Amino acid sequence: MQNSITATILVCTLSPSPKKSSSELIAKELADEFEKHDVACNIIRVADYRIKFGVEKDMGDGDEWSSIRERVVGSDILIISTPIWMGQPSSVAKMVLERLDAELAEFDDDGRPLMYGKVASVAAVGNEDGAHHTSAEIFQALTDVGFTIPAGGPTYWVGEAMASTDYQDLAHKPQKTQHTTKIVAVNSLHLARLLKQHNYPVS
Amino acid sequence: MQNSITATILVCTLSPSPKKSSSELIAKELADEFEKHDVACNIIRVADYRIKFGVEKDMGDGDEWSSIRERVVGSDILIISTPIWMGQPSSVAKMVLERLDAELAEFDDDGRPLMYGKVASVAAVGNEDGAHHTSAEIFQALTDVGFTIPAGGPTYWVGEAMASTDYQDLAHKPQKTQHTTKIVAVNSLHLARLLKQHNYPVS
Amino acid sequence: MQNSITATILVCTLSPSPKKSSSELIAKELADEFEKHDVACNIIRVADYRIKFGVEKDMGDGDEWSSIRERVVGSDILIISTPIWMGQPSSVAKMVLERLDAELAEFDDDGRPLMYGKVASVAAVGNEDGAHHTSAEIFQALTDVGFTIPAGGPTYWVGEAMASTDYQDLAHKPQKTQHTTKIVAVNSLHLARLLKQHNYPVS
Amino acid sequence: MQNSITATILVCTLSPSPKKSSSELIAKELADEFEKHDVACNIIRVADYRIKFGVEKDMGDGDEWSSIRERVVGSDILIISTPIWMGQPSSVAKMVLERLDAELAEFDDDGRPLMYGKVASVAAVGNEDGAHHTSAEIFQALTDVGFTIPAGGPTYWVGEAMASTDYQDLAHKPQKTQHTTKIVAVNSLHLARLLKQHNYPVS
Repeated sequence: MQNSITATILVCTLSPSPKKSSSELIAKELADEFEKHDVACNIIRVADYRIKFGVEKDMGDGDEWSSIRERVVGSDILIISTPIWMGQPSSVAKMVLERLDAELAEFDDDGRPLMYGKVASVAAVGNEDGAHHTSAEIFQALTDVGFTIPAGGPTYWVGEAMASTDYQDLAHKPQKTQHTTKIVAVNSLHLARLLKQHNYPVS
Repeated sequence: MQNSITATILVCTLSPSPKKSSSELIAKELADEFEKHDVACNIIRVADYRIKFGVEKDMGDGDEWSSIRERVVGSDILIISTPIWMGQPSSVAKMVLERLDAELAEFDDDGRPLMYGKVASVAAVGNEDGAHHTSAEIFQALTDVGFTIPAGGPTYWVGEAMASTDYQDLAHKPQKTQHTTKIVAVNSLHLARLLKQHNYPVS
Repeated sequence: MQNSITATILVCTLSPSPKKSSSELIAKELADEFEKHDVACNIIRVADYRIKFGVEKDMGDGDEWSSIRERVVGSDILIISTPIWMGQPSSVAKMVLERLDAELAEFDDDGRPLMYGKVASVAAVGNEDGAHHTSAEIFQALTDVGFTIPAGGPTYWVGEAMASTDYQDLAHKPQKTQHTTKIVAVNSLHLARLLKQHNYPVS
Repeated sequence: MQNSITATILVCTLSPSPKKSSSELIAKELADEFEKHDVACNIIRVADYRIKFGVEKDMGDGDEWSSIRERVVGSDILIISTPIWMGQPSSVAKMVLERLDAELAEFDDDGRPLMYGKVASVAAVGNEDGAHHTSAEIFQALTDVGFTIPAGGPTYWVGEAMASTDYQDLAHKPQKTQHTTKIVAVNSLHLARLLKQHNYPVS
C-alpha cells in the first residue's frame, strides 16, 4: 500500500551489541509506539557495523554504511537515538550525520533532493544534561540535508545535574518521557504521511 | 479563503528603525518571495517595540509583545530573521524565543498546543561565521514550542573568516543566498498548506 | 595591594529585583566562596539597569551599560550567572555578551586587548537541562573577547528531564553543585592571580 | 629543563594519510609558530590510528588510543585541529573528546584532576561557516575535563556562505588567520608556562 509508512531508528550508542544501551532502550520504546500505528520500524545499532568516517555515500574498502543508507533511503522517517556525552550528541551520531551529508548531492527522478519528503526526529538519553542541545545539533544537520522536523520532539531523558544513573537503570519509567515518546511517534507519522502524498515542489 | 497562507517575519536586529539593517534586508527579500506565491507577509522589526524580558504572554507594565504575539498567532508561518553576533543568534532573537516559550501553556479548542500546525524557519546574516549554529538554536527552541521546521532552511549569508562586510553592503547579491531564500519561501509555504489542512492529531 | 583580586558577577535573570531569582542565589553562593579568599565581589543584577541592545561600549540615550562596564573593566574575574531557558543562556546574558563584544576594539596602554589577563566563568541554573550548552556559548563568546577560562567550571544545577522545580526552591542544597561552586571560585582566583602578575605578551 | 613546554596537536580530519588535509595544514602552521618559541610539538593524525569509540582510557581489543593518550598526558598544551562539517566539529574530534572524558577519573599524585595545569585550544577549518560553534563545543568539553582555555583562540578559516574552496586550496594564505594562529601559539604557551609552575590548588 502506497501510504504505508516505514521508520528507521539509528541507535548511536558508542558500544556494539550485546552491551545494554539506554539509547537502544528508548529506541525500542519509540518503535513500540510506531508499531501501534502500523509503522514498520527498523532499529539499527550503528556501532555493530563497520562504518568509515567520511562524507561520501560509499567510502569503499569494507565500508558497511551502504546497507544502513539503503534503509534510510527506503524509509519515510529517520530517528537518531543518541546517548549524550559531555552535553553533546555522540561521535557515532556525528559520524552518521556526516555520512548523510553525502545526500546533498542526491536527487530523485524529478530533481528534488533525495531526502525531501522524509521526516526526522531525535531521542536522547544521558545521566544528566544536554538533551536540548543534542537535538539542536541533529535538527540543524538533518534540515540541511533535506529532512523535515515535526513539532513535539525530541523525546529525551536526563537526570539531575551531575547525576550518574542511566535511563536503562531507572526503577520507574519517567512518565513525561513516555508521553513525549508517544508524541514523537504520532507527530512524525502524521507529517510523514502528508509529505509522502505531497512532497515539496521541485525548485 | 481558508487556504490563504500568511507569514510573519520577526526581524531581530539590535537596532531600531530607521537604521539600515541586513537582517531586515534579507527579511524583505524573503517577503518578496512569499508574495510571489500570494502569501501575505508582515515584517516586524522587534527593536522598534518595547518588549519586556520574560517567559509570559503578557509581562504587563507597557509590554508591547502582545501586538507581535497576535501576528504570530494569526500566521501560518513564522520566520526569525536575525543578525549573527559572536557566532550566535542576537539577544533580540533570544528574547523573542523566550516570549514564545509561553505558548507551551496555550492550546487550541481541540486541546492541541497552539503553535501546532505552524511552520517556522530562519534567515541569518553576519559578517562572518555562525549561520548554521544560529539556525540550530532557533530550530530547537521553536520545535520545543510546537513549530514544524521545513527542509531547505535556513537562508543565510556570512562572509569569509574574520571579514567585516555586511550583507547590505555587498556589491552583488550572492546568488546562492538568493536561491536559498526562494527555497525557504516555497518549502515553508508548501508545508504550511499541508499542516493548515491537516493539523497534528490531538494527543 | 596590587595583588588583591576583585570579581564581578553579572546576574542575567530575566526579572528585575526584588523578584526572587535562582541565578542570583547561585551568584551569592559563589560570592560567598570568593569572599572566603578575600576576593571583593560585586553582584550586579543586569535587569535592574536600563541596558540598550547593541555592540558599542556606550549606546547613548540613557544607556546604563557604562556603569556595569566600569565594574567589569575594574575586575580581574567576570562570572556570568544565567538562568537556562529552552536549554540556552538567557537573552539578558546574550545582551551582555554583545555589549562585551565592543571590547574587541579596546586595548591597554601596552597594546593588548583590554580583557586580556581577566578570567571568566559561568554559573547556570534551570529547571532541567541545558547547563553544558549554556556554558559553551558563553565560554566561546568570552574567549573571543579576550577572557581566559579556568578549569573546573561551570557551576550549575538543573533538575531531571522535564522537571519544574527551581534551584531556589530545592529543599536541600545539592552537594555536588556546592562543591563545584567552590572549585569555580578557587580556580578562577588562582588563574586571575597568575594572569594579573603575568599578563599575555603583546603580539 | 623543567620549564620546557610541549604541545600535542590532534588532527581530526575524517581521512587517514596520505590524503591532503586542511586541518593538518593549519596544524602544521600552528606547530611552526610553536617551534619558533622552542615548544616541541607532536602532530597526530587521529584517523591514522585504530581508535575505538568509548569513554574509557583503554577500550582494549586493539584500541590504539593509549599511544595518543600518552602524548596528551605528557604535553602541556593540547590543540584540537578539526575540519568543520555541517557547521560542527568532526566526528573524529567528538570521538577524541569522549576518550578524554575518561580523564575525569584520573588524578595526579596530589589528588588534582590529571588534566589540571594543561592548556587547550582549537584550530578549525571549513569551506564555509561553523568555526565559532566548533570551538564552543570543544572548549566546553575540554574545560569539563580540566583544561584551561587561553584568550585569543580559536584560529580558524572558513569561506563565504555556501562556498566550496578548502583552506589548503587557497591561492593566498589569509593574513588574519595567520595572525590568529600566531596568537593561539603565543597565548597557549604563556598560559601553559604559568600553570606548569603554579598548578591549581588541590580542592
